Amino acid sequence: MLEPKKKYGELAPTERILLGAGPSGVDSRVLRAMSTPLLGHLDPEFIEIMDDTRDLLRYVFQTENTMTLPMSGTGSAGMDTVLSNLLEPKAKAIVAYCGVFGQRMVDIAKRTGAEVEVVQSEWGHIIEPEQVEAAFKKMPTAQVLAFVHAETSTGIMQPVKDIVKIAHDHGAVVAMDCVTSLGGAPVLLDQWGIDAAYSGTQKCISCPPGLAPISLNDKARKMLHNRKSPVSSWYLDLTMIERYWGQERFYHHTAPISMVYALREALRIIAEEGLEARWARHQLNARAFTAGCEAMGLKPFAQDGYRLPSLITLAVPEEVKEDEVRQYLLNKFQIEISGGLGPVKGQIWRVGLMGSNSTRKNVMLALTALAAALNAQGFKTSASAALEAATVVYNEAAC
Amino acid sequence: MLEPKKKYGELAPTERILLGAGPSGVDSRVLRAMSTPLLGHLDPEFIEIMDDTRDLLRYVFQTENTMTLPMSGTGSAGMDTVLSNLLEPKAKAIVAYCGVFGQRMVDIAKRTGAEVEVVQSEWGHIIEPEQVEAAFKKMPTAQVLAFVHAETSTGIMQPVKDIVKIAHDHGAVVAMDCVTSLGGAPVLLDQWGIDAAYSGTQKCISCPPGLAPISLNDKARKMLHNRKSPVSSWYLDLTMIERYWGQERFYHHTAPISMVYALREALRIIAEEGLEARWARHQLNARAFTAGCEAMGLKPFAQDGYRLPSLITLAVPEEVKEDEVRQYLLNKFQIEISGGLGPVKGQIWRVGLMGSNSTRKNVMLALTALAAALNAQGFKTSASAALEAATVVYNEAAC
Repeated sequence: MLEPKKKYGELAPTERILLGAGPSGVDSRVLRAMSTPLLGHLDPEFIEIMDDTRDLLRYVFQTENTMTLPMSGTGSAGMDTVLSNLLEPKAKAIVAYCGVFGQRMVDIAKRTGAEVEVVQSEWGHIIEPEQVEAAFKKMPTAQVLAFVHAETSTGIMQPVKDIVKIAHDHGAVVAMDCVTSLGGAPVLLDQWGIDAAYSGTQKCISCPPGLAPISLNDKARKMLHNRKSPVSSWYLDLTMIERYWGQERFYHHTAPISMVYALREALRIIAEEGLEARWARHQLNARAFTAGCEAMGLKPFAQDGYRLPSLITLAVPEEVKEDEVRQYLLNKFQIEISGGLGPVKGQIWRVGLMGSNSTRKNVMLALTALAAALNAQGFKTSASAALEAATVVYNEAAC
Repeated sequence: MLEPKKKYGELAPTERILLGAGPSGVDSRVLRAMSTPLLGHLDPEFIEIMDDTRDLLRYVFQTENTMTLPMSGTGSAGMDTVLSNLLEPKAKAIVAYCGVFGQRMVDIAKRTGAEVEVVQSEWGHIIEPEQVEAAFKKMPTAQVLAFVHAETSTGIMQPVKDIVKIAHDHGAVVAMDCVTSLGGAPVLLDQWGIDAAYSGTQKCISCPPGLAPISLNDKARKMLHNRKSPVSSWYLDLTMIERYWGQERFYHHTAPISMVYALREALRIIAEEGLEARWARHQLNARAFTAGCEAMGLKPFAQDGYRLPSLITLAVPEEVKEDEVRQYLLNKFQIEISGGLGPVKGQIWRVGLMGSNSTRKNVMLALTALAAALNAQGFKTSASAALEAATVVYNEAAC
């Protein structure tokens, strides 16, 4: 018999303030819900909890789509699910791409065997409607246009209206990644005409990572049911999963009960606050934080006018070591922020003010900590100027 | 704006005793661990927790395989992962199949594009080595033999030694499903020569559903790295996932932090008890429960000599309505047991005595409740005879 290598101690992590690209902090009500004793996955009481969760997800997605449910995997599983259920060998898709997560969409789309036309934009910039139009000129029979609404790697929020219209004019279905916007910025599936969308729970929904809310309208669902080949992944096959989450309760896999408990509670908190109030809160705190950073001499990375309210990206000043600032924040303040991914690694910071973490308290603390970290690096800046600039934003908003 | 349909009340499920096919009950220490505030998924402290979890999984799997980790999905994701990483178009696989979960393996294996040879046994019976030998005669170049060690749909525990030898003699890699045995019955990957295995957390590990422990040895890993085509599912692609769980910490997806907390705690409890003591406990309680059932006039469904210690299957007497007994147990005793799946639906019950639920207390309570339910159905039986028979088993074991 092999024995355990050592005595593993009690779980006692440091209490962090999670202001990175996700996971975000979680309300204690959600943690408590998660620790509720388990029901069976086919228990009538659990089925009611599933139904509540779907209802609440429809509210957060602003949709009446029947096929709205949380996939039993993290946000990336949502991306894989939507693309690999809509695409198949010989299908044609356009993927509009301006960051790591759009790039990932390209990878997934190609794995389905579909032909993929890529629209690429500069890192930190949006996709322009003309680029999408041009892609449809090249691939007029594309059945799917996929894009990222809130690009977590750059902090960009992509305008939706024009590119959806172009796709629909060409008869394509629109698939949208809203991992970093759902629950923190307007996501209006039905009003915008989004045919399929996916998200994660660990960003603005403020629920631990582990589930991927998805929603498909009847057009996308019809596309799924008209497939010529089975979905390549059994685990992510929506034709079976809709029978488990639907009226039939056909056994597919054992739902992650505790995660569903957590999601229901997180969504209940969103419903109590109200989506519009929640969006406004994210917007205000992002504005205040950005104003504070600018007063400190930092420059936002994402294109002006298209910045996410949930994730603020900042260019790292040339004289500053990007990772040492993050280390300082983690060690001296127990604050996590994220660095850049891919081509902007080392060049930007990503500061998440998501869900229950988007508070005035966190904005002020993050500015204070960031100023201290920058000063420690020899980048002379003033915390008080930052706090003042942020306060101006709050005071104006109160008027 | 669409508004929430109603006011969703506080989460307050009935406290069940989960003696079905899974999820099983969870120790309060695990629930508490799960409600620990989150760390970021790349936090140095979380990385240590990941490493502990991998170490402890190696102990439970009885392996030194480097590639041992929990996939971010439920047990079925483990099945999909192992098969879709080992197989690809034009590969050849033999799947030995004697229940719903073996059937599922066939489905998944076919989706990879591999050619699949099926070995089928009667429901409730094991696969005989001769059947596997015959399959290799038909498909001598099969690269993979996949089978289920503990078939959750029938209650059978498959002997491993002979069929592994046959597969290895033919140069094939062996993939084993141990969803319902890991942590409750001997699973000795290295000693048995199993090349790839997967399990779930929600059975004998007594952790909520949501993760799928997997383990691949170097032979299986080499097969993975020698693939000609990419793994069809991006989310389940082990070539990337091993870089996240490995030294490189290459970002793939956001790990389900809270579930990893829960798994680490559940594994810690297993290490404290010791695997051998845990296996003996499962064995004893299963024997006592089965003796009690037989004294009540019920017949075990699974083939004698090959019964799982974690999941006991019982044939439903002809005069009894299968689902009404389950309803009675749920409503009068808050005990969940499971019915049959597939061709044995309505014909068997499945009673799980798994993980922390495998106790003398639960055995005695389940026998009492079952006797009451049967009597309510007009099937005259005696609880006291059942309890006596179980007690004899316990008393003998103490000798």
